[in-house]
Amino acid sequence: GRLIVSIRRSSLHSTRATTPTMPNQCIQTGDNPDLTKERKTCSFDTDELTAHLYGSRKAMEIRRDISKKVATDPDFANPVRHEFLSREKRIEATAKKTKSLVQRGSEFCNVTNPAEMYHLVNEAIGIEGYPLALHFVMFLPALTAQADDELAAEILPRAMSLEIIGTYAQTEMGHGTNLRELETTATYDKQKQEFIINTPTRSATKWWPGNLGKMSNYAVVCCQLYIDGKKIGPHNFLVQLRCEKTHQPLPGITIGDIGPKMAYNTTDNGFLAFDNVRIPRGKMLMKHSKVAPDGTYTAPIHAKLNYGTMVHVRSHMIYSHGHLLATAATVATRYSAVRRQGRIEQGGPEVQILDYQTQQHRIFPQIARAYATMFTGLEIKDLYARTLAGIAKGETDLLPDLHAITSGLKSVVTYMAGLGIEQCRMSCGGHGYSDASGLPKLYGVQTGGCTYEGENMVMLQQTARYLMKAVKLASQGKTLSHSVAYMTKKTNAKSLIGMEGGDIGREHEVILDTLEHTARRLAHEAADQWAKRIQGGENKERAWNGVTVEMNRASRVHTRLFMAHAFHRRVVSAPSSVRPILTDLLSLYLHYECVDMAQHLLQDGHCNGGQIDYLKKRLYEDLRTIRPNAVSLVDAFELSDRELNSVLGKRDGNVYEALFQWAKQSELNYTDVLPAVEKYMMPMMEASRSKL
Amino acid sequence: GRLIVSIRRSSLHSTRATTPTMPNQCIQTGDNPDLTKERKTCSFDTDELTAHLYGSRKAMEIRRDISKKVATDPDFANPVRHEFLSREKRIEATAKKTKSLVQRGSEFCNVTNPAEMYHLVNEAIGIEGYPLALHFVMFLPALTAQADDELAAEILPRAMSLEIIGTYAQTEMGHGTNLRELETTATYDKQKQEFIINTPTRSATKWWPGNLGKMSNYAVVCCQLYIDGKKIGPHNFLVQLRCEKTHQPLPGITIGDIGPKMAYNTTDNGFLAFDNVRIPRGKMLMKHSKVAPDGTYTAPIHAKLNYGTMVHVRSHMIYSHGHLLATAATVATRYSAVRRQGRIEQGGPEVQILDYQTQQHRIFPQIARAYATMFTGLEIKDLYARTLAGIAKGETDLLPDLHAITSGLKSVVTYMAGLGIEQCRMSCGGHGYSDASGLPKLYGVQTGGCTYEGENMVMLQQTARYLMKAVKLASQGKTLSHSVAYMTKKTNAKSLIGMEGGDIGREHEVILDTLEHTARRLAHEAADQWAKRIQGGENKERAWNGVTVEMNRASRVHTRLFMAHAFHRRVVSAPSSVRPILTDLLSLYLHYECVDMAQHLLQDGHCNGGQIDYLKKRLYEDLRTIRPNAVSLVDAFELSDRELNSVLGKRDGNVYEALFQWAKQSELNYTDVLPAVEKYMMPMMEASRSKL
Repeated sequence: GRLIVSIRRSSLHSTRATTPTMPNQCIQTGDNPDLTKERKTCSFDTDELTAHLYGSRKAMEIRRDISKKVATDPDFANPVRHEFLSREKRIEATAKKTKSLVQRGSEFCNVTNPAEMYHLVNEAIGIEGYPLALHFVMFLPALTAQADDELAAEILPRAMSLEIIGTYAQTEMGHGTNLRELETTATYDKQKQEFIINTPTRSATKWWPGNLGKMSNYAVVCCQLYIDGKKIGPHNFLVQLRCEKTHQPLPGITIGDIGPKMAYNTTDNGFLAFDNVRIPRGKMLMKHSKVAPDGTYTAPIHAKLNYGTMVHVRSHMIYSHGHLLATAATVATRYSAVRRQGRIEQGGPEVQILDYQTQQHRIFPQIARAYATMFTGLEIKDLYARTLAGIAKGETDLLPDLHAITSGLKSVVTYMAGLGIEQCRMSCGGHGYSDASGLPKLYGVQTGGCTYEGENMVMLQQTARYLMKAVKLASQGKTLSHSVAYMTKKTNAKSLIGMEGGDIGREHEVILDTLEHTARRLAHEAADQWAKRIQGGENKERAWNGVTVEMNRASRVHTRLFMAHAFHRRVVSAPSSVRPILTDLLSLYLHYECVDMAQHLLQDGHCNGGQIDYLKKRLYEDLRTIRPNAVSLVDAFELSDRELNSVLGKRDGNVYEALFQWAKQSELNYTDVLPAVEKYMMPMMEASRSKL
Repeated sequence: GRLIVSIRRSSLHSTRATTPTMPNQCIQTGDNPDLTKERKTCSFDTDELTAHLYGSRKAMEIRRDISKKVATDPDFANPVRHEFLSREKRIEATAKKTKSLVQRGSEFCNVTNPAEMYHLVNEAIGIEGYPLALHFVMFLPALTAQADDELAAEILPRAMSLEIIGTYAQTEMGHGTNLRELETTATYDKQKQEFIINTPTRSATKWWPGNLGKMSNYAVVCCQLYIDGKKIGPHNFLVQLRCEKTHQPLPGITIGDIGPKMAYNTTDNGFLAFDNVRIPRGKMLMKHSKVAPDGTYTAPIHAKLNYGTMVHVRSHMIYSHGHLLATAATVATRYSAVRRQGRIEQGGPEVQILDYQTQQHRIFPQIARAYATMFTGLEIKDLYARTLAGIAKGETDLLPDLHAITSGLKSVVTYMAGLGIEQCRMSCGGHGYSDASGLPKLYGVQTGGCTYEGENMVMLQQTARYLMKAVKLASQGKTLSHSVAYMTKKTNAKSLIGMEGGDIGREHEVILDTLEHTARRLAHEAADQWAKRIQGGENKERAWNGVTVEMNRASRVHTRLFMAHAFHRRVVSAPSSVRPILTDLLSLYLHYECVDMAQHLLQDGHCNGGQIDYLKKRLYEDLRTIRPNAVSLVDAFELSDRELNSVLGKRDGNVYEALFQWAKQSELNYTDVLPAVEKYMMPMMEASRSKL
């Protein structure tokens, strides 16, 4: 088809001119005038948007209160910025803050509220981990879920009161993804009623667990259980690693830090090897699997007990990676409003770099994606709560659906957030490359999420396997669960054409319909290709490996469709005061997604070239529409200067003086003449001079 | 069209089965058996490919000789790996090596040969810079090109013999891209015949120049020249910064290091501010512009004198970023051959992760792109040499063409190499995130190239402006220069269809033809959109800003076409012994590029969905074709263990033991009990215990 659709969107914004201009709440005297100018063109109430994002006005106020208290609390002050400290000194500073947080946490917030604690830790400590992170996130939950009553009674009170620090040691040097092949052994000794924990090879060394290297004195350790020479499979055991009094490693335990990493250098990711360490039988976590004194093994009733925990962790990751992207978008947007360079038209003053279309095209989609990701994370958290409630009532069928979509989201969100943070960093030019911007560390921390908690390619395959089941069920006329319900819908032929005449809400629905068609088609085609290979004589698994790239592509589009729907749902249900600005942002998001996935929209002729041109044109209009609200949209994330940790992103926009003050602290500036110069370069020059 | 093209490619490889199998040259006893197995399936002579890549067998042997000598030279030994040193200690270690390199360089290679020196510095020092980098790359060339005879006679011998160390200070805190607005002033004082150098604002502070902070005692400084209150524009001045005897900053000079960065932390990027520093008139670089004693100003004859230098630096960047991508591809490919995890089919042993299609799809295109980029870099270096020779004969018309394509290549190559390195890093799972892999630092170093030497979005616009001129000239029927000559060609309708019946060489030509059509179409459409905006009443510049995203897209496709042609040229001219394997790699490259740019191929109906499906199918076949040669292809880059700086990429493949030995050196492992634990965590636990 060669249809060129008409453009009548610009008229939509005229209705909003009548809305009274609400000033952005961030303006203060002494701010960079360019930032103030930006904030004065705000067309919505930033507080309303912040409240919608964090769930309620009350939640927003609690966040503010936490930020304010931490900012002025001497226990959390940074006499020297982390960027200028050695790893050891950073860890020391973090341990000090952690101790204060443990002792005084309830002065800052309700420590039983996860959202409040998440914010408190971000503010007080930062994003690179702290000595008790794994204790709270993995050690306590593992004991709670898997220890039998006797072990729980013995250890849980001590763990909860922080008499001991624990972590969870699963990953080994040689095995991460494939847990069934973990090499650490726990061999049952019937005579002594003990397990012998051993590390039989170098690659069996436990490797990577957070807080394992230096902080923890206990760990839940995942080992291959052997009874009477028979391999039973991986099970968890509580093992003491260090003396409670001296913190020295116990006999038979080799333990240490695995060295510096791309980021998370405040965390002591560790290694751990056992030389025939004996533990009593009761230290096995036996709530579900059991080993009787005589060595009789009882298997658990449910095979996949960690399922729920995994879903929970991934749900949180979705939200938090949106938050990390929001951090980068805030830095890039504010800096681009402050930075003036070059001219668009001759004669005028140098322009704010935010006025360049390329800069808008780099940054604004990241703002939209940050909102989309955080909203999706919130929806997933809601779904998880509902799923748990359902499980309590015996409804277990929601969990597989949630598991499949969180796997896809984990992969898509972490990868896109990484790309987005890097676009934000590069959009800040040279200064983005400096640690002063906070962006290199932010990327380092964020990109770790592509690997931990399930490597992204493996995650997409989990989603794909679920999609394949859905394709099959759909072909049998069955009703499908939430995330794949669209598989049974019929496509409106050439649906994108429909948007030419409609309003903005209709346009969004048509785009969602188009994305549904595309996701459905890709899933079906991947299924067909898989089937064709099987028909060609390959077995199922080998055939799967021949179509995995296509499978993962289908998973990605399916997941991006889910995000588009989730964002759309949060926009149409938003308070009327912020619905117009969110609708603008949703437009940008949807148009950007369609252009980014244009290959798939065009592939089967569902869209034609003229329609893609139309979507691009709309996208460039969106950039202009967002421009006057860009700074206010990032202001509404309400990330404090402490959270941003960036001289470029400061609320007041006075970046150049801050950059100079930051640089003066460089360790190389402690002396005028560097020892390296004195020892090597000065003698080198002197030798050349004296040759003459 | 719905044409489904036939698949008859697999037959092509049968001819090669008759070639005698040449063993890969890298096999040694004690190697990881999985790597040896890979090297035994090599179907080509790795030495032949290495020689083709580095220009000749002799060049290859010189490289080897340099690597061997450095590896065993005590002056370049690393008693402690850089990853475990503070910035100050790293700089000290680098200064020590630099001194040895200066004194003993000629023992290792011909120090006047740039390729040999590039390799020597990579081997002996590494990729994060050294104290004399800017001295050689910027300071000496600037003086040579721009100093008048008197100044040159005074300073060049001293600079060349390293009696002094210099750098080039151009970028300021507030201005990088737009040099015309630099704020540092050089005001001529007619009475005293001196220039007064001054930093009038904080943002005027020189910021970023390499080796400025601590190492250099001189700099060529770019300042706004003022004569009689009139602003003349930016000019260069030689300024002494530090006392030659004490290395203390001279009066009026504020100087220091700008602090840690994403990478290049061995380099002292610096800041510099002047408080009315006076220098004699003769310190201005007056070969082209002049200020007479009475203040009379003479403008240079040619406006763009740095043109050639910029092209030269960017040419080198193209090659070196291919080299950095090759480094990551080597690490990822070797590690993926050694790492075993999971099963493709039940019952078998765990497979090498290189057997997963997703892993191949992540890594193999990076191998192809590394070759493509290095080959393109070599071609550009040749073109540059020919252009210089042409200029000597008065032919200046080649330079604009070379400038335009190097601008595009600088942008495309640096961005793609970054994406590729990150794919390689992530494909190594958790261990890729460790500094032990060398990949985080590699990415940090490499991604800097997206920003320095011309920000990538600005670079693409330079190419686009040249494309717009080409479109105009083509419409006037004029003959066009090298890189845009295809603008005047006519497209064969539906040319991709042609490949269904042809041989592999014909298929490649048809793909190149298709890419030409697409690049041409995008340039014309961008031109049309620009013209339409101007017709709609916008002035040229404002209209340009409304189409820049489209302009940059056209530039990217144009540049990727150039790379595809350059790769193709090097393959068809390759020695027959390596032409088959390079042809396989070129196939992978072209199919991957087409699938990656499928949106543009589909947009105007030039290709249809069936053809894209065909290209994908071919791509998946390519992955299987490359698989048995993958390790050998990266072996042929011949990057030494020292250059790779990665426990995962070692030639011998014995990664797990190396990882353990590496981690043991972590500074946190100097003591069993970390001071942070003793000071904070042990008392915290003790307090909890005593509460009971």
